[in-house]
Amino acid sequence: MQQIDGGVTAAKGFQAAGAEAGIKYKDRKDMALVFTEELAVAAGTFTTNVVKAAPVLWDQQLISGGKPVHAVVLNSGIANACTGEEGAAYNEQMAAAVAEACAVKKEEVLTASTGVIGMQLRIEPIQKGARLLKEALSDTREAARAAAEAIMTTDTVSKECAVVFEAGGKQVRIGGMSKGSGMIHPNMATMLSVITTDARIGQELLQKTLRSVVEDSFNMISVDRDMSTNDTCVVLANGKSGMDEIQEGTKAYDDFKEALLFVACELAKKMAGDGEGCTKLLEVTVKHAASEEEAKLLSKSVTTSNLVKTAIFGCDANWGRIACALGYSGAAFDPGVMDICYKSEYGELTVMRNGVDAGYSEEEASNILSAEAVTVIVDMKQGDAEATAWGCDLTYDYVKINGDYRS
Amino acid sequence: MQQIDGGVTAAKGFQAAGAEAGIKYKDRKDMALVFTEELAVAAGTFTTNVVKAAPVLWDQQLISGGKPVHAVVLNSGIANACTGEEGAAYNEQMAAAVAEACAVKKEEVLTASTGVIGMQLRIEPIQKGARLLKEALSDTREAARAAAEAIMTTDTVSKECAVVFEAGGKQVRIGGMSKGSGMIHPNMATMLSVITTDARIGQELLQKTLRSVVEDSFNMISVDRDMSTNDTCVVLANGKSGMDEIQEGTKAYDDFKEALLFVACELAKKMAGDGEGCTKLLEVTVKHAASEEEAKLLSKSVTTSNLVKTAIFGCDANWGRIACALGYSGAAFDPGVMDICYKSEYGELTVMRNGVDAGYSEEEASNILSAEAVTVIVDMKQGDAEATAWGCDLTYDYVKINGDYRS
Repeated sequence: MQQIDGGVTAAKGFQAAGAEAGIKYKDRKDMALVFTEELAVAAGTFTTNVVKAAPVLWDQQLISGGKPVHAVVLNSGIANACTGEEGAAYNEQMAAAVAEACAVKKEEVLTASTGVIGMQLRIEPIQKGARLLKEALSDTREAARAAAEAIMTTDTVSKECAVVFEAGGKQVRIGGMSKGSGMIHPNMATMLSVITTDARIGQELLQKTLRSVVEDSFNMISVDRDMSTNDTCVVLANGKSGMDEIQEGTKAYDDFKEALLFVACELAKKMAGDGEGCTKLLEVTVKHAASEEEAKLLSKSVTTSNLVKTAIFGCDANWGRIACALGYSGAAFDPGVMDICYKSEYGELTVMRNGVDAGYSEEEASNILSAEAVTVIVDMKQGDAEATAWGCDLTYDYVKINGDYRS
Repeated sequence: MQQIDGGVTAAKGFQAAGAEAGIKYKDRKDMALVFTEELAVAAGTFTTNVVKAAPVLWDQQLISGGKPVHAVVLNSGIANACTGEEGAAYNEQMAAAVAEACAVKKEEVLTASTGVIGMQLRIEPIQKGARLLKEALSDTREAARAAAEAIMTTDTVSKECAVVFEAGGKQVRIGGMSKGSGMIHPNMATMLSVITTDARIGQELLQKTLRSVVEDSFNMISVDRDMSTNDTCVVLANGKSGMDEIQEGTKAYDDFKEALLFVACELAKKMAGDGEGCTKLLEVTVKHAASEEEAKLLSKSVTTSNLVKTAIFGCDANWGRIACALGYSGAAFDPGVMDICYKSEYGELTVMRNGVDAGYSEEEASNILSAEAVTVIVDMKQGDAEATAWGCDLTYDYVKINGDYRS
């Protein structure tokens, strides 16, 4: 497997576009389309929030039906959540407008929205956007980038990733885009992610594989522990690589899953590293936990602690806050044996050893923590399980952005 | 029941003191003592964090033994958590130093610590503090205030409360103090709370009553969702009011429990309203939930949401964030019927009705949210249960305080 420059148009047969529809923002792209002429098998994972946005309900119904699709249309600016039946109607109109422009059925068009909760969409921008998107559809690198930019809200950079691997003599590609910066605590945040591939795979297997991959990628990131009403990750597989259909238990499957996991993890890390107001990516690896479930609980408890996040912002090696967050994670363990280590491009340093202060240089620790990507490694010494979670620091700018998001 | 000016010396027979021991801080009180000549029945609730401070382990052992006590000694500056056997020895020495100064047994002295995790205490300040505390012990209002001040860390105000009620012709008093500003998400935070009463009550009944009261008071507040390693709430009852022993099922018991709950809620609200860097007390009442457990889950999910907390800081009526936090609380409900209302001294306004935008003036909402105490009322329309949780806004100053707490 090899990483390549690209996004949702990297895989054969996929086109994309971004357009200025005027959904809510002015003078910026706010509507995106991903399209495949060849019908694609579709899998998706969605927010588990009880309050679900209209597009989430629409996609869940389509995907559980198992039928292939042609497109995903996405908008930023308005989340279409807490909008009742009126919101559901606007969402259906968004799918219908794209379907009409592209001469497919509305039931072959998935939807996704991100932005302010509680506000209604308007029909004019939707229809204008659908026309513009259809005109701009293209399989170029630029088209993928335009789509990735159109779904940004408080994101500061667009997020894309693509890889290529070989299966049965064919080049298979997976490419994706995502957005997400605030309200990020997926189980599924408002994270939106669209991944396309020209692999050939059945719908049930794709859905099962996606669910497993999401557990170890998107569901391991958190910006603010606020799980969104709109989280959506969909994968479209159109088979255009010409490969034979992927079967579970084969090398082709293992390679596909590895490649999908890589793309999902890269997109997930890009979201965590672009968390609202953040200056650093925080990676927390918990080793030797009693079980994988506990390793995940422990690592996420550290990435979601406001006290850890502010300490990382301040380059303060205050490891007691990490010990504290591990302690309230819900996992049972012996705090008297664990080690905590900081690592970055500037070095590696054990700050807690066997449950107590390791005796270290505060200056050295602070220097390590000043990097743009900081890793915390916790050795529980309880078992063999390991997990990694990703988050970011908590800064003045997070408060600034969210103290006045809507204006 | 009537609220009176006072703290831990309000009840008969209780003395208190605060002293400059030099534990970690300079030129400020950092050690406190609460003492009763008459042995007192003791009840306590403690952090459920797996990582427990040395004084927590000490108190849990003493209180589970059921024996009466003479004193509680507390220090600020160093939490004595993650300090291993050495830390346990220092903690025992702190109890022993106070026991010697006051001519009681060390097993009759409860302990509590708050401050930096991972740092060891030193014996000289402990011994100096014990001597100074014994000399300063007094039953005056000032002595109670000195004790309450000595346990502050990042608190900006000391926290005390006292009430008096009548039982069997006797005046019974309950007074308490607490500290807590950061790492506050009790189940039990570093919150420390000592409540004294001259009521006469058995140990088992006092413990049971305290546990129930803590559930509806301290355990309903959160500053940063970080549950401390040191949370401690102890109640001492010395019987000096001269009343007959309180029996469950009597009016005296109901009055006692009501008075204890009042004191605990007042102390809890004072902590939430003095959260690190905060400008506002946030109260969230969830009405008509399906069960009390769900009402508590729902209300706490709102008070602990960073996005809600920053919106409240910014006086932004962004109710979608409240709906979102309710949705990921873990409670099951129909989001299509609920109402959300803001209330403060400046008015009351419904912003969400039956699951969608109620159509309201942003200006009016913003004005209501500009008060120092803001209440969010959520009507779930699912059942009869109700709960209230308390928190605070998330501000630049929280980031400032915690980006560099230790220096």
